[in-house]
Amino acid sequence: MKLWDETVSKAKVRLYMDVPLNGGAVITPSADDAHYMLKVMRMGVGDHVALFNGKDGEWLAAITQASKKSLTLTANEQLRPQKNDLDVWLVFAPIKKARLDFIAQKATELGVSGIRPVMTRRTNVGRLKDDRIWANAKEAAEQCERLTVPEVMPACALDELLANWDPARKLMFCDEELSGSAAHNALQKVSRKGLAGPWAILIGPEGGFDDEERALIRKQPYAVPVHLGPRILRADTAAIAALSIWQVALGDW
Amino acid sequence: MKLWDETVSKAKVRLYMDVPLNGGAVITPSADDAHYMLKVMRMGVGDHVALFNGKDGEWLAAITQASKKSLTLTANEQLRPQKNDLDVWLVFAPIKKARLDFIAQKATELGVSGIRPVMTRRTNVGRLKDDRIWANAKEAAEQCERLTVPEVMPACALDELLANWDPARKLMFCDEELSGSAAHNALQKVSRKGLAGPWAILIGPEGGFDDEERALIRKQPYAVPVHLGPRILRADTAAIAALSIWQVALGDW
Repeated sequence: MKLWDETVSKAKVRLYMDVPLNGGAVITPSADDAHYMLKVMRMGVGDHVALFNGKDGEWLAAITQASKKSLTLTANEQLRPQKNDLDVWLVFAPIKKARLDFIAQKATELGVSGIRPVMTRRTNVGRLKDDRIWANAKEAAEQCERLTVPEVMPACALDELLANWDPARKLMFCDEELSGSAAHNALQKVSRKGLAGPWAILIGPEGGFDDEERALIRKQPYAVPVHLGPRILRADTAAIAALSIWQVALGDW
Repeated sequence: MKLWDETVSKAKVRLYMDVPLNGGAVITPSADDAHYMLKVMRMGVGDHVALFNGKDGEWLAAITQASKKSLTLTANEQLRPQKNDLDVWLVFAPIKKARLDFIAQKATELGVSGIRPVMTRRTNVGRLKDDRIWANAKEAAEQCERLTVPEVMPACALDELLANWDPARKLMFCDEELSGSAAHNALQKVSRKGLAGPWAILIGPEGGFDDEERALIRKQPYAVPVHLGPRILRADTAAIAALSIWQVALGDW
């Protein structure tokens, strides 16, 4: 982290770009990114930007050409090598706009590798814009110094999700009706049994899963039901709390 | 929780009112609360509301008189007895509006007993409206079925805060520069030593505490420095994450 702090002064702007990054790579940013650098951040030739693409680590790049119509960057120094993310998804029943943006941002900050919306009986949201979730995840990844942007998976129905689930991926099921095992203990018990590996965290809709849904989830051998305390939580709060607890019990905190 | 679910159907509206609550108590709501019940929720005589005041538990009250100019409620059944809260404060360097509202709401959901803004060298916010923090905490308490609204303490400078600190109150210091002890372990170590009791969680400003501030905090015998993982977190994310971890390690989760 110290190291990154030093480079911050050299490169205040940090962007995800889906282009190959290596020493000498010449990059033409998208129109949006070019606008951001030139108009919003008022950058010009000689200014630096940090780039990452999810594969090649983080690179310092300089603006080597800028005009009204085009912008060229040249990558010249690797700041950090690529590092594998923890493999943990957030699977959540989508909620209204502002809180949805918020969940995508916070889940990214908290290190998820994938974001998967799931439609439940009480999910009260119509068509979902994957683009919007992705844009929020990208911006959060740029700000929180991640080397990847989480994968945003298409929304699907709960029964379809479970029918196609890879049983090797454990599912931390935040069950509102449960009063038994506290989240951290439940997770540590699973991990003591040597069942580490890929995980997902499942958060229900406002109003909760219905009884049939809960029964279906609990029946799955990969499901690990946990509870999140005695108070009522909003879905976005529950998502952040669950991820934090997962990070402490099984992740890199 | 089951019990509360049943009463939800009887009383969809749940309000904090600073009035005595007991069987037969006659209550005149504030103009704001009256407007909310009559105009927003379109309630009338015979409709029920759940009330709490932070002292007398939760009561079911009926609207016994309603006119354009006045509204009267009569409390008639205690739904839940009063329960003591955990004694944990959130002490945080205030940030811009939307995130400030958000922190007040989430901290309330996560069960804090007190909210205390602290001014640090990098705190970039002018005059703070305690009223606004309190209004957010009140609304969150009403929604998440708490029996209290957290106390909102006036903002003060960091050195003043520490100079007047009750050393019996442990301070979970979320230290960005620390890479050593993970939060949960650090908290459990303290609690194993038999040092439970009142706590506070301290979150710095965007940009972090400066070195002198960090040294000052770490010097305090009641400070328990913890770290929150390898990624950069926004201050609001850090507050929620820290509270969740505290709840699991030492609270009621």
